[in-house]
Amino acid sequence: MPALIEIQNHGAIRELRLARPPVNALDPALCLALRDAVHQAAADDVDGVVLAGGPSVFSGGLDVPHLLALDGSGALRAAWDAFFSAARALAEAPMPIAAALAGHAPAGGCVLALCCDYRVMAAGPFRIGLNETQVGLVAPDGIQRLLRRVVGPRQAERLLVGGVLVDSEEALRIGLVDELVGIDEVPLRARLWLETLQTLPRTPMRQTRAIARADLAAALHPDALDLDRLIEAWHAPDTQAGLRALAARLGR
Amino acid sequence: MPALIEIQNHGAIRELRLARPPVNALDPALCLALRDAVHQAAADDVDGVVLAGGPSVFSGGLDVPHLLALDGSGALRAAWDAFFSAARALAEAPMPIAAALAGHAPAGGCVLALCCDYRVMAAGPFRIGLNETQVGLVAPDGIQRLLRRVVGPRQAERLLVGGVLVDSEEALRIGLVDELVGIDEVPLRARLWLETLQTLPRTPMRQTRAIARADLAAALHPDALDLDRLIEAWHAPDTQAGLRALAARLGR
Amino acid sequence: MPALIEIQNHGAIRELRLARPPVNALDPALCLALRDAVHQAAADDVDGVVLAGGPSVFSGGLDVPHLLALDGSGALRAAWDAFFSAARALAEAPMPIAAALAGHAPAGGCVLALCCDYRVMAAGPFRIGLNETQVGLVAPDGIQRLLRRVVGPRQAERLLVGGVLVDSEEALRIGLVDELVGIDEVPLRARLWLETLQTLPRTPMRQTRAIARADLAAALHPDALDLDRLIEAWHAPDTQAGLRALAARLGR
Repeated sequence: MPALIEIQNHGAIRELRLARPPVNALDPALCLALRDAVHQAAADDVDGVVLAGGPSVFSGGLDVPHLLALDGSGALRAAWDAFFSAARALAEAPMPIAAALAGHAPAGGCVLALCCDYRVMAAGPFRIGLNETQVGLVAPDGIQRLLRRVVGPRQAERLLVGGVLVDSEEALRIGLVDELVGIDEVPLRARLWLETLQTLPRTPMRQTRAIARADLAAALHPDALDLDRLIEAWHAPDTQAGLRALAARLGR
Repeated sequence: MPALIEIQNHGAIRELRLARPPVNALDPALCLALRDAVHQAAADDVDGVVLAGGPSVFSGGLDVPHLLALDGSGALRAAWDAFFSAARALAEAPMPIAAALAGHAPAGGCVLALCCDYRVMAAGPFRIGLNETQVGLVAPDGIQRLLRRVVGPRQAERLLVGGVLVDSEEALRIGLVDELVGIDEVPLRARLWLETLQTLPRTPMRQTRAIARADLAAALHPDALDLDRLIEAWHAPDTQAGLRALAARLGR
Repeated sequence: MPALIEIQNHGAIRELRLARPPVNALDPALCLALRDAVHQAAADDVDGVVLAGGPSVFSGGLDVPHLLALDGSGALRAAWDAFFSAARALAEAPMPIAAALAGHAPAGGCVLALCCDYRVMAAGPFRIGLNETQVGLVAPDGIQRLLRRVVGPRQAERLLVGGVLVDSEEALRIGLVDELVGIDEVPLRARLWLETLQTLPRTPMRQTRAIARADLAAALHPDALDLDRLIEAWHAPDTQAGLRALAARLGR
């Protein structure tokens, strides 16, 4: 079985590349592999991590066809737990993480990017955002806070309620990503940003970083995610209709 | 008696137009009519509401000459309560509301706009802002929070302390409004924005929206408005001088 | 002994100029003189204060060579207390304060600027920011909050973790300063901004201002500064190496 996460070391910086073709749909296996790879990078004491995907799609978000095929709320909960454990591993990592977004990053793909320190995105017709309402899902407060801390409450409200995906130019303009580069340079530029932090005294930098990101870790606390509500609402007609329409589009 | 709120339905979107010439000064009758119209729109289960005013003035804010003529703090409190009940009806409405600002929106007019989901303003020499300090009033924390969530704490501090009204171009630049269009197109564009939300699964969109706007509802809680202080300060010399100067300007 | 703070009155606006050549390094004597001058301006009931430094350096930040030469943690704590008492005097002042940044404002110089109401900076190759991590210091949450309220959580995280100093153009773009002017006009423009507030009813303006800045005062509460941790970490190898490298650069 090929690895779901490809690992490449560049000195003390490690690149973790999502590798579940065609669009890195986030099923539990990929989520748990990502969680473990982030924990391993911390255990190996790397200086920083590049989280890469693509090309053309960083990650298409949660694997909705997989979720729709699950039998029972226990399996559904396990799938969501796996996703949030990956998000938490990123949010709570002791080392800086730069997202290399060489393509689209909707929904769960955007959530993972928001848990990183810095986001480099490919210039061009690629889109990013939290489009949960488009497919009939409620974005819980914890997820909303991830977006609010990056783009502010006004833009977050507009984007979340409308389930809006923005292109890379608008993402840069509103601060949802930090830098746009040609698609082939995305991982390199993510790494170069991490290298600027390698020159700093490590302990004070990391302690300062932990303080700056305390709200990020808090946003992913189970109380802020209200997983019970998410699972209860799963079978609501609106939600099922939205999800099945999405799955049908993906199947074409 | 002509209606204080003109109502026009466009399919499942309802336009509520403030109709108290010449400048839609917010006296208790207009405030209560607006509150009731918003509640009725919710009861009628419309998809969205356009809150319109103008042309040339969306609303000039609270009816200061009316307030100055009131006899006793009981009537003054009732007038403020009426205003905040209108603001709360907008902030807590279950359906999205777009403000159609076809002209100036100072003070109370700006407060109402800040309680909506989206603000379309007329391009041109129109101004918007919370100019309370200019007329001797203290902006309570709840009102300050409405502005802070939209433009951020730094701009909010600058605008509130100085009682600054900005023109529509600057309002767009700092995020105080979302879109500028020709004055005749303002209500139409507000409606078009609401139509983009009509395509979404309704329940998840509305639940996501309620989470995104929970801070807005909290800002209008009586504890954050400190109405006692506002009413006590009403007769302070600074405040009376500012209000009477405003009333004199309006009377010319 | 020449005064550490030069005082000049322009009508009811008072200019306080840091006057400890060559770079207004913030040793306890300068910090306490600044604190006292701000308190005196309040006692004298001035309408506003310009806090000036420069030219070329507003303030180079804390006097690191002085701090490194101190004997024992008691003296170190006293030095930090003196610095934060100056910051608190600015943050809690009853009258508006405009920072006239006619040059660089790194570290402690930036902290003082963030405690003011408005920041006018010299156009040109001057830099401002919280570069604590560059010299091995942890920016405590209170200091991080000062920056977050001005530039938002995303920019604050990026700048604080990297210890980034930005030039005046970028400072304007991200909102870290409010206005850029030629270096010789900086104090004048700071004064002109204060004059716009002089026309307002004073009590309501000041009460509105106190509400708008309550989070600033709270950020400087001892609980948010965690001075114990700062002092304990002082002798960590990373920190000492960073500070001694800085002192060596300053000595050249």
